[in-house]
Amino acid sequence: MITDLLENERLDDLQINNYKIIQKKDEFCFGMDAVLLSAFTKVKEYERIIDLGTGTGVIPILLEAKTKTQQIVGLEIQPHIAEMAKRSVLYNQLESKISIVQGDIKEAGQLFGLASFDVVTSNPPYMNDLHGLKNFKESKSIARHEILCTFEDLVKAASKLLKPRGRFYLVHRPHRLIELISILTKYQMEPKRIKMVHPYVYKDANMVLIECIKGARSMVKVESPLIVYDSPNHYTEDIFKIYGRGE
Amino acid sequence: MITDLLENERLDDLQINNYKIIQKKDEFCFGMDAVLLSAFTKVKEYERIIDLGTGTGVIPILLEAKTKTQQIVGLEIQPHIAEMAKRSVLYNQLESKISIVQGDIKEAGQLFGLASFDVVTSNPPYMNDLHGLKNFKESKSIARHEILCTFEDLVKAASKLLKPRGRFYLVHRPHRLIELISILTKYQMEPKRIKMVHPYVYKDANMVLIECIKGARSMVKVESPLIVYDSPNHYTEDIFKIYGRGE
Repeated sequence: MITDLLENERLDDLQINNYKIIQKKDEFCFGMDAVLLSAFTKVKEYERIIDLGTGTGVIPILLEAKTKTQQIVGLEIQPHIAEMAKRSVLYNQLESKISIVQGDIKEAGQLFGLASFDVVTSNPPYMNDLHGLKNFKESKSIARHEILCTFEDLVKAASKLLKPRGRFYLVHRPHRLIELISILTKYQMEPKRIKMVHPYVYKDANMVLIECIKGARSMVKVESPLIVYDSPNHYTEDIFKIYGRGE
Repeated sequence: MITDLLENERLDDLQINNYKIIQKKDEFCFGMDAVLLSAFTKVKEYERIIDLGTGTGVIPILLEAKTKTQQIVGLEIQPHIAEMAKRSVLYNQLESKISIVQGDIKEAGQLFGLASFDVVTSNPPYMNDLHGLKNFKESKSIARHEILCTFEDLVKAASKLLKPRGRFYLVHRPHRLIELISILTKYQMEPKRIKMVHPYVYKDANMVLIECIKGARSMVKVESPLIVYDSPNHYTEDIFKIYGRGE
């Protein structure tokens, strides 16, 4: 059966719609970043979405569960990861709505055509310092470091794929915020909504969620902070609302 | 006596060191912005500071109270406001540490010399939309709107006045964040520390505090949010720490 698990794979519960996702124990597994990004993303029913660097396909599957969208593409460069994402889509019987495509973000414009999407999402590699990195071919390194695709490559692709006024949703690390903003605005991706994620209310932000509108004028809303824990190991109400209470 | 109040003036308590400030009832009075900025600003004993667009001189006076600095200049373009600030300095007997200079931010480089300060602070006019503004000469309008000085004029001046690795502290409105960052980085004023201020933890930010270091590399810390109220009319502990409890 196509959804049989391969060696080292496991089936994880997404805690929504009874959806499951195939992940490999020794490879990159989705984190809170992907869940928060899918909750931050706003999509209308008729809108066409592409998730750039989709990995296991977690964002398309969560977006299908959380929104009314009918068409989501997940683009993933690593063939064995894309294949795993395809099996997750089949397992959840979402093949009529989600297509996983194996390919390079840098060629996405040619692959899908210019101005072909309403919404782009991405949970890209956070690290641009490749110094000391040992294995450039390891798929975990590729998911975490800008080895195959820089942030600028990603933004350039998003800008090509989006229709005018299309929206780009991303999650990243706050320490790169200034650089992110400078690259985003260079490609007319204007940040319109920013949400900082803090582990505790008294801690520095460790994630940032950004919504850009292609070609919009400069005017941004910095939303209420998203606080993850209110005491050790205890999520805040906001996080419970996003994750559900595991019922 | 030099500290006699003129018509329409009042003497307000700064709630620190028994310092007072002269303000005019019908003109721009300092707000929480100035208090938060002075708490956000870090100054070492030997460092020379200039506050651009100092108004009543509230930031120099608060910085003198909160830090060990020995030399603060406040630059104010409006003669009658600068004169009022001078009287506040005299009233608090701070004339050996604080000098108020009447002059234009756009000429600050020539007035004080290049690379002449370690720290620049500013609580500039927030509004750049002059459309519909009735009175361009009214001093309240000048304090609130970019009539005599744009944000770019301010950053250009700060960049000239600061030594290499000097620091620029400012408070502004978050909705202009993207534009602010783009202008700051244009003049090598690299944001290194950002603090969002939210009226309540579940509300959008309504102020942003930024520390820039001239010529630094791009890497920023988004600090814990500063929340003003925990219930209606009741300040949070963080605000009480900054303002004191009025003892």
